[in-house]
Amino acid sequence: MPVTLNAAAPDFETAFAALLGAKREDSPDVDAAVADIIADVRARGDAAVIALTKKFDRVTLTPETLRISAAEIAAAAADVSAEDRAALELAATRIRAYHERQLPEDAEWTDDTGATLGWRWTPVSAAGLYVPGGLASYPSSVLMNAIPAKVAGVPRLAMVVPTPDGVLNPLVLLAAQIAGVDEIYRIGGAQAVAALAYGTQTIAPVDKITGPGNAFVAAAKRRVFGKVGIDMIAGPSEILVIADRDNDPDWIALDLLSQAEHDQSAQSILITTDPAFGKAVSAAVDKRLETLERREIAGASWRDNGAIITVPDLDVAAELSNRIAPEHLELCVADPDALSAKITHAGAIFLGQWTPEAIGDYVGGPNHVLPTARSARFSSGLSVLDFMKRTTLARMTPDALRQIGPAAERLAQSESLEAHGLSVTARLRKLNG
Amino acid sequence: MPVTLNAAAPDFETAFAALLGAKREDSPDVDAAVADIIADVRARGDAAVIALTKKFDRVTLTPETLRISAAEIAAAAADVSAEDRAALELAATRIRAYHERQLPEDAEWTDDTGATLGWRWTPVSAAGLYVPGGLASYPSSVLMNAIPAKVAGVPRLAMVVPTPDGVLNPLVLLAAQIAGVDEIYRIGGAQAVAALAYGTQTIAPVDKITGPGNAFVAAAKRRVFGKVGIDMIAGPSEILVIADRDNDPDWIALDLLSQAEHDQSAQSILITTDPAFGKAVSAAVDKRLETLERREIAGASWRDNGAIITVPDLDVAAELSNRIAPEHLELCVADPDALSAKITHAGAIFLGQWTPEAIGDYVGGPNHVLPTARSARFSSGLSVLDFMKRTTLARMTPDALRQIGPAAERLAQSESLEAHGLSVTARLRKLNG
Repeated sequence: MPVTLNAAAPDFETAFAALLGAKREDSPDVDAAVADIIADVRARGDAAVIALTKKFDRVTLTPETLRISAAEIAAAAADVSAEDRAALELAATRIRAYHERQLPEDAEWTDDTGATLGWRWTPVSAAGLYVPGGLASYPSSVLMNAIPAKVAGVPRLAMVVPTPDGVLNPLVLLAAQIAGVDEIYRIGGAQAVAALAYGTQTIAPVDKITGPGNAFVAAAKRRVFGKVGIDMIAGPSEILVIADRDNDPDWIALDLLSQAEHDQSAQSILITTDPAFGKAVSAAVDKRLETLERREIAGASWRDNGAIITVPDLDVAAELSNRIAPEHLELCVADPDALSAKITHAGAIFLGQWTPEAIGDYVGGPNHVLPTARSARFSSGLSVLDFMKRTTLARMTPDALRQIGPAAERLAQSESLEAHGLSVTARLRKLNG
Repeated sequence: MPVTLNAAAPDFETAFAALLGAKREDSPDVDAAVADIIADVRARGDAAVIALTKKFDRVTLTPETLRISAAEIAAAAADVSAEDRAALELAATRIRAYHERQLPEDAEWTDDTGATLGWRWTPVSAAGLYVPGGLASYPSSVLMNAIPAKVAGVPRLAMVVPTPDGVLNPLVLLAAQIAGVDEIYRIGGAQAVAALAYGTQTIAPVDKITGPGNAFVAAAKRRVFGKVGIDMIAGPSEILVIADRDNDPDWIALDLLSQAEHDQSAQSILITTDPAFGKAVSAAVDKRLETLERREIAGASWRDNGAIITVPDLDVAAELSNRIAPEHLELCVADPDALSAKITHAGAIFLGQWTPEAIGDYVGGPNHVLPTARSARFSSGLSVLDFMKRTTLARMTPDALRQIGPAAERLAQSESLEAHGLSVTARLRKLNG
């Protein structure tokens, strides 16, 4: 049974704080092993990657077969049904349209001193996309990572995906093709992250690495951060549904289960103004769990991490939601816009009962790579900006320097940075002399 | 003597690669010590922070005196000369005006299916600003970190600054006051970072921590990343000046020295189309080094990490600059805009001979917290966006769901995520039945 809380109860604050603070993920400490793997790849390049792939994925590669060939990709893509292809293409089109609106604008202006100021955005030169193998190898994630990079204008996008026992995932390869991925390597784990960050004889290094992965991948991303940019380190998925009584309990149950089925560490929370509705949803979840394919995972997640919270009104719901800072937030209430306006921290908001979270996972348009573990307090979902950087621009005129230079001289002096001040002084002397 | 290279020489590529790959910073490995400090602060809160401050800063505090009082700030600020205050205020006004233009826009639109999509930006609820003590305690850095946070709309901005032997820096406190910092604590090191990230009895936790610091601070920021957001881990400062012969060698020498004087690990590079001009700059640097206050630091930096590179033309200069991806880039050439258009990776560009880099450190307007160690390939200087996050929005109508829902069902099925698909199916069934 999930936790059942009532915001009006005297012990609520303690119980809610415990829910917020609960550690759902117990990551193994693989940092030392990962450090060795990275050092090996840096030292031996391809040879290390090949040896580690043999060891972990039971696949024998050569420098020539590290990369999945165009022929292999075409053959795999041809295996995909027309319906699956059409679904991927619809998703790609909608994701691209959404992300194209995120392209930032350059700026340049002249201020009252005559100085010209501004900034300019440019894409990274090369990005690497990590795609997990096995069960968590999702074609939708390929679209969600690759399309923003290509919209940003990244000229070279290299993907890595492990192929345990040599098995390729046709949908993943087709998604990569649709999204415009330029190179695909059949490697995974910390060795793939190291190869992307430092390069090998066969794989040119990239500047930014994104994409989800297991504990080894996460530890490797942390270690190469600084040498390259990385996206966030994703934790288990979460959903918070705020629902009033005017909803179908079964729909809400399915929305909660759609996160729970990801991972037994996932978390699904319902906040409702009606305790009877909460009970109805609980019953609907139990009923669905009888037949759901992934009922073991979903059931464990719901039992261990799920919660149903009753609140006196939607203001309290918004307040609790902001403390949770959920990755996914569904607002199944009469006026979702009014409630949305009170939400300050959330990765993605799904407004109204016709917007199940799963739409956002695939075809809505917004990115499904979102901040987990309360990090929506300070970070955002993946976007075009993650594949771009801003260069600031400044151009003084002699007159502008005459106006603001003396303040720079003064501050340089106060910080005991003499050459800083002199670089201004020398120019002002020419102007004034 | 700095390295002297000629891009036309046969061994240039090897020498340039060595320059690019040179490791200038030899950070001590303090990670284990930092892990202990963080654990201590998490376990004992104020008591740990007080004990560590006694040990490292030789200052005896109580929970009541951890925070610098309004009276102390006012008294310190009153100590600052009118000229210094005016310079700080001019800098703050210009930095604020520049950063206000960075405020991102929300978006909302309806697409051809009738779905409403968009996003919304919100500030973090609380930010923490680390300010180093001692020699590197710069009032300009307080402005550069605090003003973007306040422009972003961060309601609570807490600053930490160690006060070794109890010495307060009046300019730092005045800068904090001008920038609108809400709380200031006289603590530093890993213990201050831990206190900001996890909170103590006296210090409420924040959501984002920015600001420079020594190896302990950097290691602590890496460790609390995930619990809170952090800015980049800054390395030693760098400047690249691209100059033609029509410049005063002394001005360029001073610009190079203004980075070299920061730190002996700093790096100053001149790229010029004229070898004779390169020699003249070298001579001018040597002459300035005879009298510069920080000649030992600046001289060591220039000798160990400096370089003068001769190139056949400005296209080669741009190409080398993009490989360096400098933190600061000065373009002292006849047509700096034309050259700037060829630059793809740089933290900040200073256009023309009237724009010494030091202007950007203080009063230009753009931020002086910039990506170092070639990270301008994938990251940007500090901005208002670092203190905000984006929530994506999606609202389906029944008709929109009818159009795109089937593709979501299909993809969910292909990923074996049954509940994802069913959450759409249940709604479509209602629409169709």
